[in-house]
Amino acid sequence: MVVADISEGELVRRIVSRLGTSRAIVGPGDDAAVVAAPGGSVVVTTDTLVHGPDFRLAWTSGHDLGFKAAAVNLADIAGMGATPTCLVVALALPPSTPVSFVEQVADGFRDACAALAPACAVEGGDVTSSDTLTVAVTALGDLGGRPPLLRSGARVGDVLALAGDTGLAAAGLAILFDRFRVDGKPMPVREEELTQSESRAVSAQLAPHPPIALGVVANAAGAHALMDVSDGLVLDARRMADASGVTLDIERARLDPANDISLRGGEDHALLAAFAPTAVVPEGFRVIGTVRPRGQASVSVDGIPEEGPGGWDPYRDWDGVIG
Amino acid sequence: MVVADISEGELVRRIVSRLGTSRAIVGPGDDAAVVAAPGGSVVVTTDTLVHGPDFRLAWTSGHDLGFKAAAVNLADIAGMGATPTCLVVALALPPSTPVSFVEQVADGFRDACAALAPACAVEGGDVTSSDTLTVAVTALGDLGGRPPLLRSGARVGDVLALAGDTGLAAAGLAILFDRFRVDGKPMPVREEELTQSESRAVSAQLAPHPPIALGVVANAAGAHALMDVSDGLVLDARRMADASGVTLDIERARLDPANDISLRGGEDHALLAAFAPTAVVPEGFRVIGTVRPRGQASVSVDGIPEEGPGGWDPYRDWDGVIG
Repeated sequence: MVVADISEGELVRRIVSRLGTSRAIVGPGDDAAVVAAPGGSVVVTTDTLVHGPDFRLAWTSGHDLGFKAAAVNLADIAGMGATPTCLVVALALPPSTPVSFVEQVADGFRDACAALAPACAVEGGDVTSSDTLTVAVTALGDLGGRPPLLRSGARVGDVLALAGDTGLAAAGLAILFDRFRVDGKPMPVREEELTQSESRAVSAQLAPHPPIALGVVANAAGAHALMDVSDGLVLDARRMADASGVTLDIERARLDPANDISLRGGEDHALLAAFAPTAVVPEGFRVIGTVRPRGQASVSVDGIPEEGPGGWDPYRDWDGVIG
Repeated sequence: MVVADISEGELVRRIVSRLGTSRAIVGPGDDAAVVAAPGGSVVVTTDTLVHGPDFRLAWTSGHDLGFKAAAVNLADIAGMGATPTCLVVALALPPSTPVSFVEQVADGFRDACAALAPACAVEGGDVTSSDTLTVAVTALGDLGGRPPLLRSGARVGDVLALAGDTGLAAAGLAILFDRFRVDGKPMPVREEELTQSESRAVSAQLAPHPPIALGVVANAAGAHALMDVSDGLVLDARRMADASGVTLDIERARLDPANDISLRGGEDHALLAAFAPTAVVPEGFRVIGTVRPRGQASVSVDGIPEEGPGGWDPYRDWDGVIG
């Protein structure tokens, strides 16, 4: 059974039935949802996954797709020092999409919320027909009366701290590209050919588990600046440095692994924070460097200006293969 | 110049520069935006326009596309009795999309907010590459401490009232399908061949102006129920009737025009409200019927049960032509 075989209303009912308990004042089913905003403001972000540049169906299950689409949006809420409260999901589906695949996507959203942000659920959405499978997600969050943590808040003398992985998702992508393609075309992953650490890397790429709960922890601990590291540590650190008018110096030996993939690999959605030198860096964060007066480069590694390439650009970097 | 010629960052800068003044606590540029929610809750909805089923580029300019994508989402916020406060926009763009087209889309969003919801602006977004041009919008709104107006609130004895047009956008779509296609393929509109009223209908289809400000007016006037009429008056009235456990009786003579297109035409985004019989129906709304005890059908017209077809279903109704 494919989505063209059933009505839009029936498809929506099947999705909603799998989303778990609504956390909202008004959940799915009316013109809009109504979500509590006890802090008197709401944090909002949107991020889209498109079949082709962002995922390939040979590698990504419906469950992975929903899980990742949730995780990358939750990470942007965490990156503001807020708690995720709600997701809304727009699914654009080719008529030939199996209904069971869409149900797995819904399961992935439910399981990502349960695992990463238990106060959050999918509270609304939209289903449309399209030639290109697209998952557009908007996440809302609440600051609980605390200030938002911006990229521009890092101060000279602060310590630079990281929560979560760097380089793991990129290592997973490299395994997929190197070993599970034939003539450039993605092929299903043969789990039995992966070591345990390779399997962990592939999972980090396909269904990442960012440290969502540590965003609000950093805020409660008085962090000066915070951001989601989505495009690679050096590239995102450069954004924080430029917004703050400082140079961020990273100590390579403090990264794990202490090599280039940790500096440049994207899609792990670690949290990068700047804390006052007197602050107690909260559990889950580890110190990886210091905030210095603005020098010749935005970012340095072991004191040496870092001018290497940035991260992923979909128009420049996508090879055009759908898969 | 097409989007593949410039970086993602440069494209985002060009879009943001055209969006007008941010109304938010934190506007575009960080991991997420932060928007005031003075009422202690936030209304949230999402609606997507996909090239093919939802619009054809032969008929729709970039400005129309941005304007309509904003308007249809603002209407869902109004349909809850709330004031729109913020839009976030995910654009999935083929690499061959002209940059000037994307800039016109941004202009359309800005102009729709200015015309329909002056307290609202685009405060964040996402740009990705895709084979299918897709505009996924999420709108937020604030209830100002009032209750949300649900579909389930209509009570027996209430008057049924409507604000905005019915049938006009459908008349416009019929003109486009009948007169501006060759061999089934959409062709540019020749404005000089349209009468003034035909031109008004085509505009209502391509860049609708729903009565957004009347949502909160209905709420302040104590409406029992409210909804956005997006799929046709009978179909959406059926949804309100079923949610409320009543029958809605529409008087055909009170519709304008008093014929079938007003009952079944979609995409005008009028507001359908139920007011207590003692309430003063606010200016901008006109009485079109009454709320009756649940009878054999959800909706009747002049007392006769209405069993006609519903509205648009993208999987059933789209002819597959992109255009």
